[in-house]
Amino acid sequence: MAEQKRVCLTVAYDGTNYHGWQVQNNGITIESELNRCLTELLGEPIQVIGASRTDSGVHALGNIAVFDTTSPMPAEKFSYVLNQRLPEDIRIQRSEEVAGDWHPRRHASRKTYEYRIYRGEFPMPVRRLYTYFTYRPLDVDKMREAAAYLEGEHDFKSFCQVGSQAESTVRTIYSLQMEEQGPELVIRVCGSGFLYNMVRIIAGTLMEVGQGKLRPEDVEKILQAADRSAAGPTAPACGLTLIKYEFL
Amino acid sequence: MAEQKRVCLTVAYDGTNYHGWQVQNNGITIESELNRCLTELLGEPIQVIGASRTDSGVHALGNIAVFDTTSPMPAEKFSYVLNQRLPEDIRIQRSEEVAGDWHPRRHASRKTYEYRIYRGEFPMPVRRLYTYFTYRPLDVDKMREAAAYLEGEHDFKSFCQVGSQAESTVRTIYSLQMEEQGPELVIRVCGSGFLYNMVRIIAGTLMEVGQGKLRPEDVEKILQAADRSAAGPTAPACGLTLIKYEFL
Repeated sequence: MAEQKRVCLTVAYDGTNYHGWQVQNNGITIESELNRCLTELLGEPIQVIGASRTDSGVHALGNIAVFDTTSPMPAEKFSYVLNQRLPEDIRIQRSEEVAGDWHPRRHASRKTYEYRIYRGEFPMPVRRLYTYFTYRPLDVDKMREAAAYLEGEHDFKSFCQVGSQAESTVRTIYSLQMEEQGPELVIRVCGSGFLYNMVRIIAGTLMEVGQGKLRPEDVEKILQAADRSAAGPTAPACGLTLIKYEFL
Repeated sequence: MAEQKRVCLTVAYDGTNYHGWQVQNNGITIESELNRCLTELLGEPIQVIGASRTDSGVHALGNIAVFDTTSPMPAEKFSYVLNQRLPEDIRIQRSEEVAGDWHPRRHASRKTYEYRIYRGEFPMPVRRLYTYFTYRPLDVDKMREAAAYLEGEHDFKSFCQVGSQAESTVRTIYSLQMEEQGPELVIRVCGSGFLYNMVRIIAGTLMEVGQGKLRPEDVEKILQAADRSAAGPTAPACGLTLIKYEFL
């Protein structure tokens, strides 16, 4: 019998047709599809450990999952073999061996998310699943001003969904930038970690600033309030994509 | 009774779930959905006339359709009212009145199409419906060299699907450019008109050049052959998007 090894997968998916990452009783998830394909492939029960438990409808270019196996298959081959079994809206981008005690949620990392807003008079069908549509004008300069208050280390309790189990609500945002790509406005955020719904609440709050419902400087007060009801709404899931994990 | 007027629609759609533009007996099409919604809305049988009869799986940001009606509704309102009835993968971007004898296929126009290729080791799920995936390296400089032979007025018989009813196979390509957008290679072509499958055959031929199966200068001989079998394969539909019509 081959020695046990831990394999790390970089997982891309279109979240449209899934009930999020985490295994649930009432629907197919990214995690359940990975478990099913690995269990069928290896003939032993496999349960992956994921880095980010993305919500229903959220997309990823590079989420991370690990699993242990005694299979003699080289770690690098798993991407090819799994992609032949997975549905076409999930694709392993890379597979590699990691240390047996390496855990994707316990190892320090930088995470990058993008929230995309499609601005126009009417929605654009080919972008409907990957952007949030708004016909309301957004003042991007004001959104940039507001974003500056969120960069750095802060208590992001106001930007955390009520009911989250997080022990601490202090996180560090390394950068929070706005980029215009034609009709799309991309909010790109890179941080040490994110609380439950944090990126979507940041996006919802920045959009309120862009529409003039909040002033940029209000964001400082929202942070100080340490109260979810002080911030703007949670922006819809389809606009959100997990871009990448970088382990430090 | 109001006077009859001709209304012009700019139509965007995600072609994934349709049997192309043109009404067919065996499946739902963009044209059949427009006819259905307009007929229900106006209480009179409406048949639109489309500019480009795109194939199954091809997308559009701005196809054109016209119809006649005696409805007193201002032409500009049709976009709003139709978008409330159409499925979310079809959206009218603009509606306006045009002259009663204006015909979208008989009026001189410049058409722009994009063919998108996603280059990577594995497909990217969020782009799978809007790009053609290839893991083969493409020499973009050689593709640009080849593209230059196709610009201008030529007999494009080699780039026309056999069985097409076109009277003449002479067309003018105003520009044919390659743009790299990260992992995506965009072939953008602007012309006076395109024969059946012409853009997809151009894309398939340029990819053969990019892979070294054809030399750039072979494209000149392919044009001279005036024979479909001389050109490369027809690239898959999902990579193709009709970007816009400009009427001259």
